[in-house]
Order: sequence, then C-alpha cells, then structure tokens
Amino acid sequence: MLTLILAEAALETIPEELWSHASVRRHSKRRRKSPKQLILDRSLHHLAMKRIGNDLKRGRPDITHFVLLEALGSPLNKEKLLRVYVHTNQDYIITINPVTRLPKNYTQFIGLMEQLFEHEKVPHEGETLLDLKHKTLQQFFSETKPSYVLAFSTQGKSKTIQDVVSVIQPMKNPTVIIGGFAHEHFKEETARRANEIVSVDSEMLEAWTLTSRLIYEYEKSISLPTKRLHKPC
Amino acid sequence: MLTLILAEAALETIPEELWSHASVRRHSKRRRKSPKQLILDRSLHHLAMKRIGNDLKRGRPDITHFVLLEALGSPLNKEKLLRVYVHTNQDYIITINPVTRLPKNYTQFIGLMEQLFEHEKVPHEGETLLDLKHKTLQQFFSETKPSYVLAFSTQGKSKTIQDVVSVIQPMKNPTVIIGGFAHEHFKEETARRANEIVSVDSEMLEAWTLTSRLIYEYEKSISLPTKRLHKPC
Repeated sequence: MLTLILAEAALETIPEELWSHASVRRHSKRRRKSPKQLILDRSLHHLAMKRIGNDLKRGRPDITHFVLLEALGSPLNKEKLLRVYVHTNQDYIITINPVTRLPKNYTQFIGLMEQLFEHEKVPHEGETLLDLKHKTLQQFFSETKPSYVLAFSTQGKSKTIQDVVSVIQPMKNPTVIIGGFAHEHFKEETARRANEIVSVDSEMLEAWTLTSRLIYEYEKSISLPTKRLHKPC
Repeated sequence: MLTLILAEAALETIPEELWSHASVRRHSKRRRKSPKQLILDRSLHHLAMKRIGNDLKRGRPDITHFVLLEALGSPLNKEKLLRVYVHTNQDYIITINPVTRLPKNYTQFIGLMEQLFEHEKVPHEGETLLDLKHKTLQQFFSETKPSYVLAFSTQGKSKTIQDVVSVIQPMKNPTVIIGGFAHEHFKEETARRANEIVSVDSEMLEAWTLTSRLIYEYEKSISLPTKRLHKPC
C-alpha cells in the first residue's frame, strides 16, 4: 500500500482580502455565487492576487485536478493499493475515496471543489467520496503514523525514482509527499515531516509527472503491470 | 528520438449540424464567437452531440490538453528527444514545436485551440509553435517515413511498456500511436498504419497515463534520469 500526499496544494476559496476586487466581483456575479464560495484561480484572479502574500504558491487548482486524475486512474488505485490525500496551503486535508471518479472537465472539477469547501464532504448523501477537514500535516501524521515519509523537492538529495521506490516499497506504510504548487519550495513545517527529501531531476518536474512516475515505479516494484496483463478478463 | 502521435484525437470545432442547437447558440453568444470558431466540448454540448455520428469518440479536448502537458513537460522533451503530433478524428495534423509552453489552464488551452483552428498556426507572427494541416495519418506517414509504428490498444497483444520500449528504442525513428479519445477503438485505417498493436493493461488506461509511462520508460532506456541528475546545474 502506497500513501500519496499532495502537500501545500494551491487550492482554496477566494480569501476575504480579495472579495472587493473588481475581477473577483465580476466572476462572482457571473457564477451567481458569493466570492467566498468560489475557488481561487490565478487565470481569473491574477491581478487581484497581487494583494495577498505568497501569491506565487496559490491559485492553481489545476495542479490538484491533474494529479488526482493521474492517481485515481492508475492501475495501483484500481487494485486498491493507493491512498491519496490532498493537504492544502491553508491546512485542510482532503481524504479521497479510491472509488471516486473525478470529472475530467476542469470547470466541473472546480464546481465539485466549491461544493467540497462549502459542505466539507461530497456528495451530500450516501457514501462519502471527498471529505475536507481543517488539519495540519503534523496532526494528520500523528493520526496515520506513516512508517516512513519521503518528499520530492529539487532541494533534496539526488536519487532516481526507481531507487526511491526500491527503498520504500518493502516498508509497511510508506508515504510520499509531492508539492501541489508551481513555484518555490515546501514550508519548513512540511519539510520537517519528511524522513528523507529527494530530488529526481535537475529541473522541477510538474506534480502530475512526478505522481505518474512514482505510481508506475511502485506498480513495477510489485510486478503489477505483468500481473494485470495475465489477469483473466 | 521518439515520435508520439495522439491519434483520432477528440478535438474539433463545432460541426455544422450542431450550429442551430440551443446549447450551442447559448455558448456562442456567451463567448461572442460564431459556433464554427468554437471547440466541441462534451461537457458543454452533450445534448446537442446526440445529433452527430460517432459522438462517444468526440468532444474531449481535455484529453489532448493533458497528454500534451505530460509530453511537453517531460525531461525527454526538454532534451529535444521527443516529437509530438496530434492527429484529429477529422484528419487534421497538429505539429507541436517542442519549445511550446502550453497554457495549464483549460479555458486558456481551449482559446488557443480556437485560434489554431481559425488561423492554422499559432502565434500569428514569429516562430510557429502550433501548426495545423488537413492531412490523413497515411499522408503524414508517407512524408515522415517512420521505421516502426507501434500503437497502444486494449485490442492488441499483451506486452508491458518496458518490453515495448526495449524493442523500439534501438530503432532509428520509432513512432508510437496513442488514442486521443475516451471510448471505443481505433478506426481500421489507423490500426492498419501500425506494425504492431500492443495492450499494456487489462483495462483501458487514460491517454495521459500511457503517455507519461511510455515517455518515462523511453527515458530510462537511454539512462536519462541518471544522466540528468548528474548534469551540472
């Protein structure tokens, strides 16, 4: 079983400082929702975002979208050998039911995230697919007690993904942290949670590329590609 | 050098049969463009699409978007060892300049595709990044003369991606075809272009997952991950 955490993900509702900005008010009117019900998106709120701190690390819900599509569509997830969580830049933890079929369409995904931030779970009734709780990574780890936590960062020690996986795969409950943002690095409080920080390329890889490669190497380390090919249909 | 073709991609402008449909007219009004300038999108034109043939294989520009992000962001592309083409369901070939930085945001990507279908190249002036030509796969291959063409399809022979790559990597100009649609299979005229058709999982993998895994295995086959880690920054 592999646990993947997309950490400090650039996914949040529009912060109060921006509610009065013209671009936010226009967006709010068009969507017929109040600004606090809308997801912050750099492509829409770029100008407004200059008002907030740390703006380069925020407003990129597309990263979470692509990472989740890569993770949930993987054979590893179909075999129920993957657990995926999103930790946001504002310390929310989203728990994702492995049977979730996320919308592939970005606009629909944003609609789903708006519902999630408003109601803290999706769907309203029946089996919960997505669940949102205000929680730090530290609180999360004190509950889940991972045996080993590895984080990917260009600031880490050089190592290939294959080498990383050969070390963590035999462990009982290994957890891998991937950054859910486009610029800069992990906060000190996130980096401190990792037993090891590893850099797998000379340049920063996109979060979805890292996700896909990590999951694939993990599948290979347990011979899943061959096993699934020989599975009776 | 690896050549990747996303084939029969579900990427087209709204076909004439749908221009009079209420949902298309609403969309056209909102976007202030005529329907023929807009990209067909199942999430917007679902009801209208019942009017057209083969509708399950059409209206999924998100697949092309995500595949191109995976391909263009890969270390293989950064090393200029990857060529990517999109062949659409209506026999257009899009040639992608490897230096292209595609918009990550879906709405902006759609805007770019609208420009491309209207002007047949993007940008208007300066170095061409995307170029669109009406051309069948057969015409394309008679020009590019690939040494070997391999296609992925659940209808193919069972083989792992690693085995596939070990066979094609030593070749001079190998080409891999991945389907750019969500349901059904390649047309007979596409399948006929392949020297070999291979199935790499018991279920259909998403096009972006296949893309990412293929490129990564190809990188590994030429020791790129290790080489790049030891590259001076």
